[in-house]
Amino acid sequence: MASIMHPLDPITPSEIHRAADIIRRSTAPKAIRFKVVDLLEAPKASVLAWQSGKSASVNRHARIYYHVVGSPNLWKACINITRGVIDNNEELPDAQGPVDYWEWERVHDACNTHPEVLAEIEKLKLPENAKVINDPWSFGTDSAEERRRLFQCYMYIVLNDDPEANHYSLPASFSPVFDAHTLELLWIDRLPLGSGADTEATQPWNPVKPVEYASEVLGGEFFRKDVKPLQVVQPEGPSFTVKGRRIQWQKWDFHLGWNLREGPVLNNVSYDGRSLFYRVSMSEMTVPYGDPRTPYHRKQAFDLGDSGFGLTSNTLTLGCDCLGHIRYFDGYRTSHEGQSVLMKNVVCMHEIDNGIGWKHTNFRNGTSSVIRDRQLVIQCTATVANYEYILAFVLDQAANLHIEVKATGIVSTMPTRVGVQHDWGTVVAPGVMAANHQHVFNVRIDPALDGQRNSIVYEDCIPVRDDVSLDPFGCAFRTAKSTITQPGAYDLDLTKSRTYKIINPSHTNPISGVPVGYKLHAVPSQMLMMGPHTYNYKRGVFASKPIWVTKYRDDELYAAGEFTNQSREDTGLAIWSARDENVENEDVVLWHTFGVTHVTRPEDFPVMNAEKFMVSLKPTSFFESNPSNDVPRSNQNANRSTLDERVDECCGRMSKI
Amino acid sequence: MASIMHPLDPITPSEIHRAADIIRRSTAPKAIRFKVVDLLEAPKASVLAWQSGKSASVNRHARIYYHVVGSPNLWKACINITRGVIDNNEELPDAQGPVDYWEWERVHDACNTHPEVLAEIEKLKLPENAKVINDPWSFGTDSAEERRRLFQCYMYIVLNDDPEANHYSLPASFSPVFDAHTLELLWIDRLPLGSGADTEATQPWNPVKPVEYASEVLGGEFFRKDVKPLQVVQPEGPSFTVKGRRIQWQKWDFHLGWNLREGPVLNNVSYDGRSLFYRVSMSEMTVPYGDPRTPYHRKQAFDLGDSGFGLTSNTLTLGCDCLGHIRYFDGYRTSHEGQSVLMKNVVCMHEIDNGIGWKHTNFRNGTSSVIRDRQLVIQCTATVANYEYILAFVLDQAANLHIEVKATGIVSTMPTRVGVQHDWGTVVAPGVMAANHQHVFNVRIDPALDGQRNSIVYEDCIPVRDDVSLDPFGCAFRTAKSTITQPGAYDLDLTKSRTYKIINPSHTNPISGVPVGYKLHAVPSQMLMMGPHTYNYKRGVFASKPIWVTKYRDDELYAAGEFTNQSREDTGLAIWSARDENVENEDVVLWHTFGVTHVTRPEDFPVMNAEKFMVSLKPTSFFESNPSNDVPRSNQNANRSTLDERVDECCGRMSKI
Repeated sequence: MASIMHPLDPITPSEIHRAADIIRRSTAPKAIRFKVVDLLEAPKASVLAWQSGKSASVNRHARIYYHVVGSPNLWKACINITRGVIDNNEELPDAQGPVDYWEWERVHDACNTHPEVLAEIEKLKLPENAKVINDPWSFGTDSAEERRRLFQCYMYIVLNDDPEANHYSLPASFSPVFDAHTLELLWIDRLPLGSGADTEATQPWNPVKPVEYASEVLGGEFFRKDVKPLQVVQPEGPSFTVKGRRIQWQKWDFHLGWNLREGPVLNNVSYDGRSLFYRVSMSEMTVPYGDPRTPYHRKQAFDLGDSGFGLTSNTLTLGCDCLGHIRYFDGYRTSHEGQSVLMKNVVCMHEIDNGIGWKHTNFRNGTSSVIRDRQLVIQCTATVANYEYILAFVLDQAANLHIEVKATGIVSTMPTRVGVQHDWGTVVAPGVMAANHQHVFNVRIDPALDGQRNSIVYEDCIPVRDDVSLDPFGCAFRTAKSTITQPGAYDLDLTKSRTYKIINPSHTNPISGVPVGYKLHAVPSQMLMMGPHTYNYKRGVFASKPIWVTKYRDDELYAAGEFTNQSREDTGLAIWSARDENVENEDVVLWHTFGVTHVTRPEDFPVMNAEKFMVSLKPTSFFESNPSNDVPRSNQNANRSTLDERVDECCGRMSKI
Repeated sequence: MASIMHPLDPITPSEIHRAADIIRRSTAPKAIRFKVVDLLEAPKASVLAWQSGKSASVNRHARIYYHVVGSPNLWKACINITRGVIDNNEELPDAQGPVDYWEWERVHDACNTHPEVLAEIEKLKLPENAKVINDPWSFGTDSAEERRRLFQCYMYIVLNDDPEANHYSLPASFSPVFDAHTLELLWIDRLPLGSGADTEATQPWNPVKPVEYASEVLGGEFFRKDVKPLQVVQPEGPSFTVKGRRIQWQKWDFHLGWNLREGPVLNNVSYDGRSLFYRVSMSEMTVPYGDPRTPYHRKQAFDLGDSGFGLTSNTLTLGCDCLGHIRYFDGYRTSHEGQSVLMKNVVCMHEIDNGIGWKHTNFRNGTSSVIRDRQLVIQCTATVANYEYILAFVLDQAANLHIEVKATGIVSTMPTRVGVQHDWGTVVAPGVMAANHQHVFNVRIDPALDGQRNSIVYEDCIPVRDDVSLDPFGCAFRTAKSTITQPGAYDLDLTKSRTYKIINPSHTNPISGVPVGYKLHAVPSQMLMMGPHTYNYKRGVFASKPIWVTKYRDDELYAAGEFTNQSREDTGLAIWSARDENVENEDVVLWHTFGVTHVTRPEDFPVMNAEKFMVSLKPTSFFESNPSNDVPRSNQNANRSTLDERVDECCGRMSKI
């Protein structure tokens, strides 16, 4: 089987079935329920050996999370699919696996049919056709003792039958907590309606009009009439080629991985035949909320570890998510029974025009050269309940690699009495408060610049001060370079334009005379606000510092560790970055934490405009000149732009605006 | 005449002629030479009175900079064109006006034909067909006494006849200094070729191959062959309408100003009938270089004040600078004789698709809504000798206004001996060093949110710490608001997610209960590195702090003051921000300084990839919900995207990448 695949290809349906069979047979006669069956990536050494031709094939492995029916304990198994054997199989009584759809539906249904919940709903005295639904949320850790698997169900009212009715505009004021294994209702939290933490018994619903985004509900008259169509046409098709998961485009060559946790992943990225990165991925994100009132203090999602950007990825639709000529890629997940489930079109790939790439005009004669910034975009949309994250890897013709994430979707909403103002958030719609929160992302960059041994350095721009002989007029500044020799967490410093670079100290650029490198264009951000004594911090230490450096080890992929659901500590960077080992001229990994503190506003509702963050990796002394110098110059013949020659509608009157 | 115009319309050819005539007649029989004849904007009060119908017309005024032939002193006149009178006319012996083309050519030619310069060129012993040209640079102030108008001419070798031959790749090692009024050669600076400041007599040129970007020189074989065409088609034309300089697009309504100094300017910006901004403009930029060696310590351009983004704007070409359906706007400058000179197509306007605007999927049923982020782009390209700046105002359908600037073009180059490394920059090509430098921009935002009286506030996100009763789990944070009451310079603070907002304290958002506002999405940057004792700092105090607040006064538009050329002090924000006056609930102006410290790299050569900076103004509690909720949902029917159904080229072999 391996002979027709790349070792890092996503898991296939037959591999899911085979791996599930192996573990099912080993556990029989006990029945098991599957949470995750996904690719366990082969060790880097074996992938490199295969790539260099030193080995003919690489065994394929699966990572399985499952439960023995009747027991709450998570099991984790590593299966050698190629050889048909179990490499490892262990019970993890202290870990909670990620949410799976089967579990989620069972909790949702248990909540929505529980007599005590129905009794609360009854007290709302809703109109005839209204119904109540709930979003079971991962239960943010608030105790060292808790070992049950808990879901906090947030309740919402639905007033119409439209499939896009915005229930987030109608939050109800109680929130049941369920045990996901026993489906027991453990207690019901009351949600505060005022500015303080006081709660009260459920009262009849105070009718407000929901703020809708559903076209059918809003009606045709609601919409703008003056948006003229804009189409992207590629008469000769796109410029990329696809062979299996290998993609080539404009001197780039890479393997497109995909898994349930991270969504799309770039492997073995090279440009013009030179190795750049072994693996680039979105590693983790956490979303702590700043409202301290119970149960809101428990809101801290880890959207990759708790759910998964792959598992929650949308099936993308032609004409909605991209313009132009689109290529889609599918994914597979497992059912609770170990059957593969097709996830259609979870990743799209297309080219875009991003405006001018570079331009110069010789002002002596007016001649000019312009190239367009053509980009290749590999994108997915993860819907994690109310929120959407649009993750994209963007490549360009100047050998820059951008990791872009857009936060959109619907803010998490809390009920409020009308007329109240809140310290912890903003009233975004009648009866709706949206608490302020942080989104803290971490991207993982496993470099391989001209080989696997690289270093991380940072460079500060520092003025020369008070050295009159060197700098008589006081304008001088220079760069101060520091090489990182030990794993750890490091700071950005905008006052010094501090820039982190990956370099290969053994390869010198013949033009500049300095080591070949790529620099990280970081996103300077406020870090996690919660202090070191909190669970928010302990679970997501990665969110406390912008830059992390570790020495590579297989299977160290996730910034907050493997199991984040109800975790009590960060078992990822917090541990790996504390090892005493050399990272200079080594197989080193660079991690970047960034994000936004989201102070909410009515303009974020009903659906918030995408807020974009972009991390870039750009060559610095990696090439001998601008790698996009050979892009054909932009011209009218190729792009067929048209002139607006409509007669000016100026009416001969002084037009007051 | 005024009755068919908006008071802020750019100056017309007949106005240039009329204003020039008025001043010429008043000065006769003395001959004069014109530098600038441009619109002097009417006082805000008179524009507002006209807009509100309280006055029927507004007099048109011109600002003229000129010299009486034979005298080096600058004169400035303010002409009431409508009434045909001179309002003011003064000699400014201590000010240097901006560079004009006539002057520039005279200096260039004087340098290139001067016997002493020719003697130096002779010493280079260049090949037969080579020639030498020069870039006269503004002479950065380095003395309190200097009153001559000086140009530092940087010399370059040209090896071929192509109109785009890259002379910046062949810098010569001497630099004559000329007096622009007398055209005297004052002295010749020698440029250091090593890492230190030592110089030597001009030596024969050490041949190196220039790094070229000219298509004809590079030849067809040099270029990539695999870039497939990508076209933007707007079958029903663009969505904007144009009446004179009034532009309407997607609920936006604004007047497009233009002048020689700032290029395009947005006036009277409103959205959906509500006033947002009186004026938004790029105000100034400065580019100090960090190489302390004479004459490089004098390199500090003020590209708006010394030259002008309007004056140096390219004539834009269909199919090069934009894709889609393009509208162009012309400008006019004056000749040295006071004749209008048409500057064709100096501003372009078009719509772009910027990806997903927002998206939400109801994961319960897979239904989703997506809008595209359609934007209107108003753009110009200023070529300031070697560098290009692409300035764009970008409006979107969510009522966001973005001010975008891209730095591109060719880095300023210095000669170097081959094999030398430099503290002050990077060797970017054989024989070429590019010194590190800063680009520090300032945008000026004159707000008018629901009226002229606004306030500037900033909001910090601050954790609640150690208040166990309020915050038992330590997750709480809140926003702390500060209102700016006095003009001054203010700091950003990323550790607090500090956000500056413009609010109208008299208008409350009915949903959130807080004042209507717009927030500034600033670009956090390293500020000017040069210390307060330097001319770099004294001339550009605006570059030392990111946020400035002033009380509005007519004709206070330019961050470093009106005359920057060889200036010895900042006569703009440094003075206006020091006034003791109230700015709360007043006619207030917000200024934002941002930029980049450019550490050069071979990848920046021959032409550097555009580095983009974007400042955004986004509503916060200005609207009751997302203003783009009424944008029609994206669908295949309108945008005609196509599916890539090409057969996977996978070949059944394990593909090694």
